[in-house]
Amino acid sequence: MKDALHIIKLGGSAIDNTEELTDFLNSFSQISGLKILVHGGGKIATRIGARMNIQSVYSNGRRITDDESIDLVTMVFAGLLNKKIVAALQSNGCNAIGLSGADGNAIQTEKRKGSSIDYGFVGDLNTDSVNSELIIHLLQYGLTPVFNAITHNNTGQLLNTNADTIASALASALSSSFNVRLTYTFDRPGVLLDPNDPHSVIQNLNRETFQQLKNENSIHSGMLPKLESCFRTLNSGVDRIQLCHTSAINDALNLKGIFTSIYN
Amino acid sequence: MKDALHIIKLGGSAIDNTEELTDFLNSFSQISGLKILVHGGGKIATRIGARMNIQSVYSNGRRITDDESIDLVTMVFAGLLNKKIVAALQSNGCNAIGLSGADGNAIQTEKRKGSSIDYGFVGDLNTDSVNSELIIHLLQYGLTPVFNAITHNNTGQLLNTNADTIASALASALSSSFNVRLTYTFDRPGVLLDPNDPHSVIQNLNRETFQQLKNENSIHSGMLPKLESCFRTLNSGVDRIQLCHTSAINDALNLKGIFTSIYN
Repeated sequence: MKDALHIIKLGGSAIDNTEELTDFLNSFSQISGLKILVHGGGKIATRIGARMNIQSVYSNGRRITDDESIDLVTMVFAGLLNKKIVAALQSNGCNAIGLSGADGNAIQTEKRKGSSIDYGFVGDLNTDSVNSELIIHLLQYGLTPVFNAITHNNTGQLLNTNADTIASALASALSSSFNVRLTYTFDRPGVLLDPNDPHSVIQNLNRETFQQLKNENSIHSGMLPKLESCFRTLNSGVDRIQLCHTSAINDALNLKGIFTSIYN
Repeated sequence: MKDALHIIKLGGSAIDNTEELTDFLNSFSQISGLKILVHGGGKIATRIGARMNIQSVYSNGRRITDDESIDLVTMVFAGLLNKKIVAALQSNGCNAIGLSGADGNAIQTEKRKGSSIDYGFVGDLNTDSVNSELIIHLLQYGLTPVFNAITHNNTGQLLNTNADTIASALASALSSSFNVRLTYTFDRPGVLLDPNDPHSVIQNLNRETFQQLKNENSIHSGMLPKLESCFRTLNSGVDRIQLCHTSAINDALNLKGIFTSIYN
């Protein structure tokens, strides 16, 4: 019987709102058993970048990460946000340890290639990216890893990496050792049939329903890659994937209230 | 028989010079056995702060750390510098893991009080500050902790802490489990009798000689608190303390070349 492991990706605006973040971290601290948190923080990096006259340029929603930008996101994600989150969790009695992919070689990525757009210092994960042995060791010692979106290529270069993808890769890699439940939190109560109607949450989404909704063009475009990725992650042996509002994390983990549950 | 443990404080200008830093990290990676690195990075924080219109104010050589400054040094020390160093060490095959004091509650400090000057979010260490159990666990797993100068008070506040003091506190706390050798690197070849003459290195400095030189006013003022601290650290059971130029670290550890050795 494998132990349960919760992997939570903190998304949406909560990371940029002291009160919402405090509430979320209190809820996260209350999750019993093994757990991992993953976070980004793009909007804060953009704001701090603006103060330094570093312009944030995006293509298809992804930051073009030049020399200055990789320094910026490393400062903001791995420094400011990661350490604030870790200190807050410690104050809640949750023994958090902040990790970039470079720390303990936890997550090794490759600089993106083969794209028509040069995204710069952006890291892509592969099936060998996650150092499961290290993460299991830290979990077994009672630590709660808190991953930021910075990884490395093992030849000294830090790389900006998509936090959703990190959460998914961790879930896949650790699913052979744990019963993994992966939860993405964001500013919506779940996957919506009508993006303008917060009451239109699709509460249960299996592969067949997903295909059907896709054929009917009923999944709005922004959710499509996220859901495609969820079903790929399920294929790798992850037990359950949930999407919920950041404020609803405890309810969703207890299968109460409104959220989207994704299963095969 | 206790294992040897090297604790190295990286000081001087090397952290701000890519070539010198690379050389130092190559040398550090070659140290065999258990090791810990400690770094600050004040000048870089001052420069990045200036780009953000955050003025760096010092009193007695210590940064006055207000709300904005603690965010700044957290970004620069725990983010930018710590992760660059960790990634460089990983590329050398040294399995480094970056740690602030908040990570795993590695180093817990108290906000400075009882000073006539309000230093703001500055943390002072006490005899219980260091979480030796965690650090020993990480070392035994084969990891090399890389500490930045950010700690926490365990109620959610990050605190800016003197990196020399962190190195000394780690050395003291770990001396019951290891034969600790503590090395401070800086821009001079050792403790100088004449601060203007790099050839005037005091190669061996015991407590008696130190007292004598102090009585003669032969120790220049900047070195006095550092050396006082070294002798206090020796009292706590640390085997040996050395001061050397950052570029001379490997020689000094092999007891070759010019450096200052401090002993009881």
